[in-house]
Amino acid sequence: MSNPWMRSVLLRTSIATGLLILGAGVLLLGAATRTGAVARPVKTFHLYVNDGEWEFADGEKTYIVGYVAYNSKFEEAPPGAALPAPTIPSPEIRVRVGDEVHVFLHHNGHSHAAKDSAFANVTHTIHFHGMDLVQAYDGVPGVPAEGLPAKLLSGVPVGAVYEYKFVPEYEGSYLYHCHIDSSTHILLGMYGAFIVEGKKPNTIYGYHYDREYTLFFSEMDTAHNEAIRTRGDYEMLKWKTDYYLLNGRIFTDDLTNPRSTIADPRSVIRAKEGETVLLRLVDASFSHVTAFHPHAYHMKVIGMDGRKLDSPYWKDTIPIASGERYDVLVPIIQKRNTLCLSCGFGKGMSIAHDHNLGGMVSSGKYPRGPLTVFAVE
Amino acid sequence: MSNPWMRSVLLRTSIATGLLILGAGVLLLGAATRTGAVARPVKTFHLYVNDGEWEFADGEKTYIVGYVAYNSKFEEAPPGAALPAPTIPSPEIRVRVGDEVHVFLHHNGHSHAAKDSAFANVTHTIHFHGMDLVQAYDGVPGVPAEGLPAKLLSGVPVGAVYEYKFVPEYEGSYLYHCHIDSSTHILLGMYGAFIVEGKKPNTIYGYHYDREYTLFFSEMDTAHNEAIRTRGDYEMLKWKTDYYLLNGRIFTDDLTNPRSTIADPRSVIRAKEGETVLLRLVDASFSHVTAFHPHAYHMKVIGMDGRKLDSPYWKDTIPIASGERYDVLVPIIQKRNTLCLSCGFGKGMSIAHDHNLGGMVSSGKYPRGPLTVFAVE
Amino acid sequence: MSNPWMRSVLLRTSIATGLLILGAGVLLLGAATRTGAVARPVKTFHLYVNDGEWEFADGEKTYIVGYVAYNSKFEEAPPGAALPAPTIPSPEIRVRVGDEVHVFLHHNGHSHAAKDSAFANVTHTIHFHGMDLVQAYDGVPGVPAEGLPAKLLSGVPVGAVYEYKFVPEYEGSYLYHCHIDSSTHILLGMYGAFIVEGKKPNTIYGYHYDREYTLFFSEMDTAHNEAIRTRGDYEMLKWKTDYYLLNGRIFTDDLTNPRSTIADPRSVIRAKEGETVLLRLVDASFSHVTAFHPHAYHMKVIGMDGRKLDSPYWKDTIPIASGERYDVLVPIIQKRNTLCLSCGFGKGMSIAHDHNLGGMVSSGKYPRGPLTVFAVE
Repeated sequence: MSNPWMRSVLLRTSIATGLLILGAGVLLLGAATRTGAVARPVKTFHLYVNDGEWEFADGEKTYIVGYVAYNSKFEEAPPGAALPAPTIPSPEIRVRVGDEVHVFLHHNGHSHAAKDSAFANVTHTIHFHGMDLVQAYDGVPGVPAEGLPAKLLSGVPVGAVYEYKFVPEYEGSYLYHCHIDSSTHILLGMYGAFIVEGKKPNTIYGYHYDREYTLFFSEMDTAHNEAIRTRGDYEMLKWKTDYYLLNGRIFTDDLTNPRSTIADPRSVIRAKEGETVLLRLVDASFSHVTAFHPHAYHMKVIGMDGRKLDSPYWKDTIPIASGERYDVLVPIIQKRNTLCLSCGFGKGMSIAHDHNLGGMVSSGKYPRGPLTVFAVE
Repeated sequence: MSNPWMRSVLLRTSIATGLLILGAGVLLLGAATRTGAVARPVKTFHLYVNDGEWEFADGEKTYIVGYVAYNSKFEEAPPGAALPAPTIPSPEIRVRVGDEVHVFLHHNGHSHAAKDSAFANVTHTIHFHGMDLVQAYDGVPGVPAEGLPAKLLSGVPVGAVYEYKFVPEYEGSYLYHCHIDSSTHILLGMYGAFIVEGKKPNTIYGYHYDREYTLFFSEMDTAHNEAIRTRGDYEMLKWKTDYYLLNGRIFTDDLTNPRSTIADPRSVIRAKEGETVLLRLVDASFSHVTAFHPHAYHMKVIGMDGRKLDSPYWKDTIPIASGERYDVLVPIIQKRNTLCLSCGFGKGMSIAHDHNLGGMVSSGKYPRGPLTVFAVE
Repeated sequence: MSNPWMRSVLLRTSIATGLLILGAGVLLLGAATRTGAVARPVKTFHLYVNDGEWEFADGEKTYIVGYVAYNSKFEEAPPGAALPAPTIPSPEIRVRVGDEVHVFLHHNGHSHAAKDSAFANVTHTIHFHGMDLVQAYDGVPGVPAEGLPAKLLSGVPVGAVYEYKFVPEYEGSYLYHCHIDSSTHILLGMYGAFIVEGKKPNTIYGYHYDREYTLFFSEMDTAHNEAIRTRGDYEMLKWKTDYYLLNGRIFTDDLTNPRSTIADPRSVIRAKEGETVLLRLVDASFSHVTAFHPHAYHMKVIGMDGRKLDSPYWKDTIPIASGERYDVLVPIIQKRNTLCLSCGFGKGMSIAHDHNLGGMVSSGKYPRGPLTVFAVE
């Protein structure tokens, strides 16, 4: 792509018609800015809407919708190429401060939804939560703007593609998610972490870290998901979370379960004595406040919502509401002597979990919830 | 009023009798203090209890109770004058640090409740949340106090008036609400913002601001409200919030809806590029934690609960529990160049809303919740 | 006990067999460390598992399980001695920074559970939340550890005793609770405060205080408790809190009720003008966020989760999630003159309560919840 700024919104197929998406293509096109090339690293990501089935560690399955990447480089998929199944969360996107970021959203439809479901042809967008973007790239439909027709942004319809572009200025942890019918679309799984790295490797807000993990907390009501798949409608006042998730998974007491949090290399926190681990806590819950509690370690809270804290503080239990992010450092202190048993964990394993006990009983059973382990060598 | 400190509690009409209000008049009278005049600005507010009907933007209506002001100056109503209908929230009261504040609560009864409802003759008070007042002006009924008879303060009965008086010492954002049967009375709508301004205009905690908005978050269960209106009783364990409110309103996707948040000049945040907007976030929820998230802007948290923060911090999503207040500054950064798309929003519109997704589905439908817009010129 | 470090795990009675507890005795024994004696003060505590009935201030009773102490010195009970009934919360344990702490957990069974309840023979542990201990003393069952067989720690079975030992390094407020089937065991009442005092009396994090109170917030669903007692199983998705507790109690409007919070010397905050009161706020909720709001006073938050805050802040309403602790100072300001009514409460009584209104309606009635009083002389 020689000059990404000049790349216009592409409508690959004919746009499905309907009131909600009326004019979306043309209007979005108008938002593209024409400017000269600049000497910034360009990072391009192609995300495709896809739906499918997600299996939890208790063997239950549910309908989900997510953003998928054709490959690990987020390259554009060749015409007709098969897309990966969606995951919870959607792939983590990583950029660097000052990058010229281009994200293409390809709406490939909902092949697993019932054809007569009202959900089958809904539009989608991407909202880069915390990036503080201009409206054209903010992913919100229907916001009135002076000088522009009403329903400027009705979202990207099935078969269309839209390009989001921006230059991140603040390092830290963010998230991206759909902002069409947000409660439903987000809760179906349309979210992922968006990480802005600083200029210096293994450094955040001026602090050094040796390892980093993103822990993404979310909720699902599988009755909601099934209703959306089949009918496209759900009485949201009936919402009843039955799955509390860490990186899309629950823990179960079967330690060999391949779908458990502890079989997930993104969720098991591996480190060596003396190292410092950066945890990026991200939350996209319905209304549950996650109370993240690692055993064996206190956490130094150094930043929140993509901004450095002037006065860091220590916690062993951090409440996190939907949309919040906490960047915390965990020093893996060496066990200096055998008597000082509380001065750090040393080698071995310890657990970390939601301490809001209601969040540890997915599908009605303890300890099925966002629980994982620190594995220290 | 020549010497407000000497003004005694007035019982304008005969007091309804009953166990709860037994002796309230005499006891309250005893709490009035006789002191000499002082050279402080005197600010007097007359608040009247009134009930009525409140219509949401989805066309549904519910029974509410609130404090109303006869006019914008909060003057005493002439005898027999008609009172305005109640609003959600009740009128915002604004005073200045060092003012001698006098608030008269006139209990004018509940003309819209069923006559045989147990609610028809309940007492009311005002609790100035965060003002840290002596018990006589704290609005709490039935607190035992040494040397005083039990049931000192049973609240202000129908037909009576009571004077609250105090001198605010700390600038910031507070709230006032009834403290009789608080869960029910507050949730019916008996709350409003109470703002203490500093000595210097457009300055809070030493920070300059150009504009300010109070965003008051609350919840309602309309089945509760109707049960109170008709019977005066509700099984509170059955509470099920069906309206999540911002300044008493929900948003709907009909942008011309006159009852929507975005038709409310108190809720639409208007500003110009380069300005700084002070948002006073106030919450009186049942148990929902509001996660306030403005798109396009980070917020600098400079004070909480009427106290300056020594170490301010930045957030794009702020969790707020019932009774909390956050004073935050939003710099409306000018869009300095077209490439730096994430360096501030510039002119145009962006949204702000509760990110706890359960709070965005009032009456079971998204996006009916506390959502409003920034409109930047 | 001449050398507590050498004291091995004692199995006083034959161990009940079963998959869950397989090998627990031997494996736990292996975790004991043999070291020489050190010049540290030794503090020994014997805790016994006991179950029973708990009566709330509204006259309702529920099945609870807790840790009990034989006497106020936590001494070992003589063989055959009767144990006290369990309380909510379990006894507060107090140690000092640098103490060599030994806590013996004696699992004396569940004599009040139905014999055929699946709960009758479950194991228990102690997790010292925030102490950051090595796995052997962390109280978590079944965590895999390299070089050790699976199911290392299945918990302490009925009839067994296990010794936990550690040296607290950070002063502050902690909690201890069972970590077997945590949601159920904790919510049945298996929790208490664990206080680590600093070296200097009446000083915390370098701040002086005159009095201190521990306010422990928790929740119960009595249907859950009864199901566990009779069957040992509960569909946790049906959880519906019907009691919101402060130090195990609710408030009622009967001021002479001996089971009310205000009849509890641990919960009524007594102080004199001019003093500073330290409140240790501790929470072990299901998912309710307690919003602690004292009338009449702001609180200076000086530490959280056992760590001093570099930048303290003031609040009048503090949200607290399960597992969190807040150490706050309340200056009981003298009422310096009669005009400055908001400069402090002076002598008398004022209330303090959860401002999340849903938390004030235990058993469906206001004001039955975590409400107590400041009583200032």
